[in-house]
Amino acid sequence: MRAVTFQGPGEVRLDERPEPELQAPDDAIVAVEASGICGSDLHLYTGRIPLEPGFTLGHEYVGTVTAAGEAVRSVAVGDRVLGTFHVACGACPACRRARYQACERSRTFGHGRALGDLQGTQADLALVPHANLTLRRVPDGMEAQVALFAGDVMGTGYHATAAAGVRAGDAVAVVGLGPVGLCAVQAARAAGAAPILAVDTVADRLELARAFGAQPVHATEEDPRAAVKAATEGRGVQVAVEAVGDARALELAIRLAAPTGLVSVVGVHNARCEVHMGLVWIKSLELRAGQANVIAHLDHVLALLHDGVLDPRPLVSHHLPLDRAPEAYRRYARREALKIVLEP
Amino acid sequence: MRAVTFQGPGEVRLDERPEPELQAPDDAIVAVEASGICGSDLHLYTGRIPLEPGFTLGHEYVGTVTAAGEAVRSVAVGDRVLGTFHVACGACPACRRARYQACERSRTFGHGRALGDLQGTQADLALVPHANLTLRRVPDGMEAQVALFAGDVMGTGYHATAAAGVRAGDAVAVVGLGPVGLCAVQAARAAGAAPILAVDTVADRLELARAFGAQPVHATEEDPRAAVKAATEGRGVQVAVEAVGDARALELAIRLAAPTGLVSVVGVHNARCEVHMGLVWIKSLELRAGQANVIAHLDHVLALLHDGVLDPRPLVSHHLPLDRAPEAYRRYARREALKIVLEP
Amino acid sequence: MRAVTFQGPGEVRLDERPEPELQAPDDAIVAVEASGICGSDLHLYTGRIPLEPGFTLGHEYVGTVTAAGEAVRSVAVGDRVLGTFHVACGACPACRRARYQACERSRTFGHGRALGDLQGTQADLALVPHANLTLRRVPDGMEAQVALFAGDVMGTGYHATAAAGVRAGDAVAVVGLGPVGLCAVQAARAAGAAPILAVDTVADRLELARAFGAQPVHATEEDPRAAVKAATEGRGVQVAVEAVGDARALELAIRLAAPTGLVSVVGVHNARCEVHMGLVWIKSLELRAGQANVIAHLDHVLALLHDGVLDPRPLVSHHLPLDRAPEAYRRYARREALKIVLEP
Amino acid sequence: MRAVTFQGPGEVRLDERPEPELQAPDDAIVAVEASGICGSDLHLYTGRIPLEPGFTLGHEYVGTVTAAGEAVRSVAVGDRVLGTFHVACGACPACRRARYQACERSRTFGHGRALGDLQGTQADLALVPHANLTLRRVPDGMEAQVALFAGDVMGTGYHATAAAGVRAGDAVAVVGLGPVGLCAVQAARAAGAAPILAVDTVADRLELARAFGAQPVHATEEDPRAAVKAATEGRGVQVAVEAVGDARALELAIRLAAPTGLVSVVGVHNARCEVHMGLVWIKSLELRAGQANVIAHLDHVLALLHDGVLDPRPLVSHHLPLDRAPEAYRRYARREALKIVLEP
Repeated sequence: MRAVTFQGPGEVRLDERPEPELQAPDDAIVAVEASGICGSDLHLYTGRIPLEPGFTLGHEYVGTVTAAGEAVRSVAVGDRVLGTFHVACGACPACRRARYQACERSRTFGHGRALGDLQGTQADLALVPHANLTLRRVPDGMEAQVALFAGDVMGTGYHATAAAGVRAGDAVAVVGLGPVGLCAVQAARAAGAAPILAVDTVADRLELARAFGAQPVHATEEDPRAAVKAATEGRGVQVAVEAVGDARALELAIRLAAPTGLVSVVGVHNARCEVHMGLVWIKSLELRAGQANVIAHLDHVLALLHDGVLDPRPLVSHHLPLDRAPEAYRRYARREALKIVLEP
Repeated sequence: MRAVTFQGPGEVRLDERPEPELQAPDDAIVAVEASGICGSDLHLYTGRIPLEPGFTLGHEYVGTVTAAGEAVRSVAVGDRVLGTFHVACGACPACRRARYQACERSRTFGHGRALGDLQGTQADLALVPHANLTLRRVPDGMEAQVALFAGDVMGTGYHATAAAGVRAGDAVAVVGLGPVGLCAVQAARAAGAAPILAVDTVADRLELARAFGAQPVHATEEDPRAAVKAATEGRGVQVAVEAVGDARALELAIRLAAPTGLVSVVGVHNARCEVHMGLVWIKSLELRAGQANVIAHLDHVLALLHDGVLDPRPLVSHHLPLDRAPEAYRRYARREALKIVLEP
Repeated sequence: MRAVTFQGPGEVRLDERPEPELQAPDDAIVAVEASGICGSDLHLYTGRIPLEPGFTLGHEYVGTVTAAGEAVRSVAVGDRVLGTFHVACGACPACRRARYQACERSRTFGHGRALGDLQGTQADLALVPHANLTLRRVPDGMEAQVALFAGDVMGTGYHATAAAGVRAGDAVAVVGLGPVGLCAVQAARAAGAAPILAVDTVADRLELARAFGAQPVHATEEDPRAAVKAATEGRGVQVAVEAVGDARALELAIRLAAPTGLVSVVGVHNARCEVHMGLVWIKSLELRAGQANVIAHLDHVLALLHDGVLDPRPLVSHHLPLDRAPEAYRRYARREALKIVLEP
Repeated sequence: MRAVTFQGPGEVRLDERPEPELQAPDDAIVAVEASGICGSDLHLYTGRIPLEPGFTLGHEYVGTVTAAGEAVRSVAVGDRVLGTFHVACGACPACRRARYQACERSRTFGHGRALGDLQGTQADLALVPHANLTLRRVPDGMEAQVALFAGDVMGTGYHATAAAGVRAGDAVAVVGLGPVGLCAVQAARAAGAAPILAVDTVADRLELARAFGAQPVHATEEDPRAAVKAATEGRGVQVAVEAVGDARALELAIRLAAPTGLVSVVGVHNARCEVHMGLVWIKSLELRAGQANVIAHLDHVLALLHDGVLDPRPLVSHHLPLDRAPEAYRRYARREALKIVLEP
């Protein structure tokens, strides 16, 4: 079968690989119908996050089950399914509390040995461990380009806002309008946030945020703190989403939050950084960080996608065949694309 | 000043009354600009709930502060304000946990000695105790007919759904589409509920629910349980709102709820009734009942009304001058009106 | 192997049965070291709840894993384990939210076809489906008579109080002091409840409750409402546990609860009954009913049993060999025993 | 009247001051029976936190109401009361959600103009604004040295653990065993935490923690991470309390927390510092910081003090008369005392 493999920084290749086989009773095999290229793929592509050469990339996917172990109960051969970017065992202490993102046996697709040695989904076929928790049937009539968001980017936007306790009528700010930030805007809107302030420096993204119901705020040409104050009687937002992953965005989110508010950090942090703990303390803030619990959110996110309240289609800038993956990665790396969907 | 007073079952009258005066340091006087007639006024009017003859009716209102005690800090003379249907002291154990609906010193406007001996707001002037918690400035530009919903009916709809933990993507059912039920539909929609099933027998109300984003279900011509099953893959709703206040509606709500779901009872119960505890137990349900905590919800409800996500205007069937209150009550009692707003 | 089987109302027998075999990849076989007789076994024994003759009884157990399917990861052959009274699939919507008590594929040991056709654990060997969620290693040094409470009665006591949101300093009342009620007293004490009022009519049970840190209240010789008022400055308890399962106990729990309090119903209800909804409404109560989520509580309950904060040993009135099970049931039915543990 | 006043770094004096008078309808005057010296007084005494010379110190107190404005309802002249370290208005958005620590009009006793210009309580009389929320009757028979902890140090320990969602059976670590840390240990124990690991370098404090039910861990002679791992099957604690207020303690707390755990920061931060956001992210932690909501916790803390589950008496190292305050501050600054109570 064909698979998009990492060869070294800046280089991916369509390779021929042996077809995967079931290894455990709760494994499934999925024939991939569509797979997304995600911002985290870019970190691997550029070499910022190391990956073994030859590893298959990809972790967002929709497809059809072609084989399933005897312990697979949630889906069956022939089902059209979507999957989550990582798998969880369902039995460890974290899973038993439905905190699947902290599963002791979690493995992420297409991220190499460091994250569980699980080959990616930008391929004709994907092996899916722990299929009971990880796969879900695609609601009738839902497009692949919509469904594949549920298992990663939209699930993360939902995690950052709706599942973080946003209550209808709360003011929300989103700092950083990449695909995750834009999905956070949609999910905040779905949860009734009013107003929503969306902060970035890229005009197109600000425009999308406006279309999704937010008040766009240019991070440098405007003063985000003043904009938030003006929109909230000077009080700040109940939930400030940090969807960038650096110290500056985090400081801004902390400044935008109202006293006793929540700073929801879905931007990826992997090191120490300076944090204004004085502000966090004096404002009695709560700060939550980490990977989204997308497995837990699947049912809700699919219901909202089905209902049309969430609609990621405006984020998909390109559809390309799998064999043009090298070109797709080059364009994504040059920031010519917001979201690319690869199809067989 | 003029005041709409109860005279006996089926009889109200516009009386002349002395103007109220400040009695405590946290009292305020409000010159009423608009006051609603509510379903609970009807219980008093018909004599179902007893009331002392001569008592002034009304508990939904918008107006302007004309006097304020020296301990009033939240609003000032000249402010255009709305108020809540009851007042809370802010100091008892319930208030200290922000459960204002259970205030030990709670008093309800226009409900006689049994509920605190507080004259109603269908008058030229109203005395408002505990004004700091009870009054809030009307957002600039908001119509009186919109703002007056915040302190009672829409606050109750919000309480029944958004504040009861409805999460974006939850399925919700509302049993009973009077003004409170219809507001619950709007608030559920604001909170991202999908789908929402709205159950009643009156065509006009079902039509309004459809316009508010719900799937209307005729309680007797259709099978509500089958409709809910069809819309939820057979599972039932996460939140079932009982907005009627009788045993039959409660049983239906219990039946519509999914296992581990919530039955949110805002319909008024004042006696024993048969409850299917076997179903409640086998489905591991949670049941919450009682008056809405409208004081706690005011900021959120006003934000959503301001944003237009909540919009009660379709519920207002009549505007009448205060001196036509007797006619207004007669029409309301004949069910010719959904919501009547009295204006000076 | 030997198994305690139901033969008809009032009759159990030690039968010889074929040894169970693994049927699914996540099954395990446990050689039983100790198995409890529980109040719900009594309902089967007396015929109040129907059961197929020949069915093996029992659902509380400790033992050693003698075989495990290839998908079993949480425990291994040779592990000393305890189990929960029911099994859950880990994959259905309820399980994915860690509400294991509402699992769509839940099966209860020793309760016949109606509850999943799963043979009981009062036997030499037990087949345990979904072993990953259902079995847990017994902490080193813990006695069997202690550990077997974790999977049923103590898990239910914990569910009724500690896991129901009792906060250190809350007042709690427990109505009904059978083993579940007494475990609820212990769990309330562990969670810092103060004061705890324990209501029953049996002197021995009241004495045990006192030893566990509660204030005993005789249900008929004293006035439980007056006792609760005196102990709570007239306010009532934040959490009232109903551990009987009838309308009278439920009414008392509703009366003992403070405004905005919680009524936690772990007594089994299986029919309609009269409930004072007027009181529930006027006091703005929350009522939660249903089977305990013992799978979710296992880690916490085991930690507390290990720590000695929870200690069910005073509840164990008898230890008997498995082949004296007929005598054990007779004594239990005559209420000569509080808790009987059967050992090979 | 006499008052302990700040004169400059390292110098306090017993001054004669005019008696305070009621200024607002919800003010009260309290004749002080006992007042504590707290770690935050030390920051003022040493000049680390600036204060106007001549300002009266102190914010922990018990006494008797000698005068009360007409809007004071919760207490009456003659009542023996305790107070909280700060006052809250009860009417701003934060107060309306019972987040009193974030009150927009909050004022802290004895901290100068920066925190609301409210004279301290180390005096014969204290003026107490917003007395309805701030004062509470002392339960019958409770010693002053016990009651005064409720309004500050023990309220903070309760905030850090019991009110932060510690559930019976959770593992907890407390980093820093000053009075707040030691109270956090007691409150964690009250809430059923098991095990509790208490980290410091001072032998006496470690010994107190052991007496309160914790496992003491010497921060430098032992390896706190190894100790926590050994006590939690390698998983870390559900709640890690940071009760120091510096970057190193915060980093340790972050390292001790289990995945999806909570880091509860009650140590005071007033500046930027380096935080290992990579660890916070990869472990999906929640971090809550800021002043304790002692007003909200008063009822629960008093119930536990009354019950004896919480008992701060072992922390009181000295009782001194008010006129020996200069000596008391000198000894406290030399760390010769853990907690000093001043009495008239």
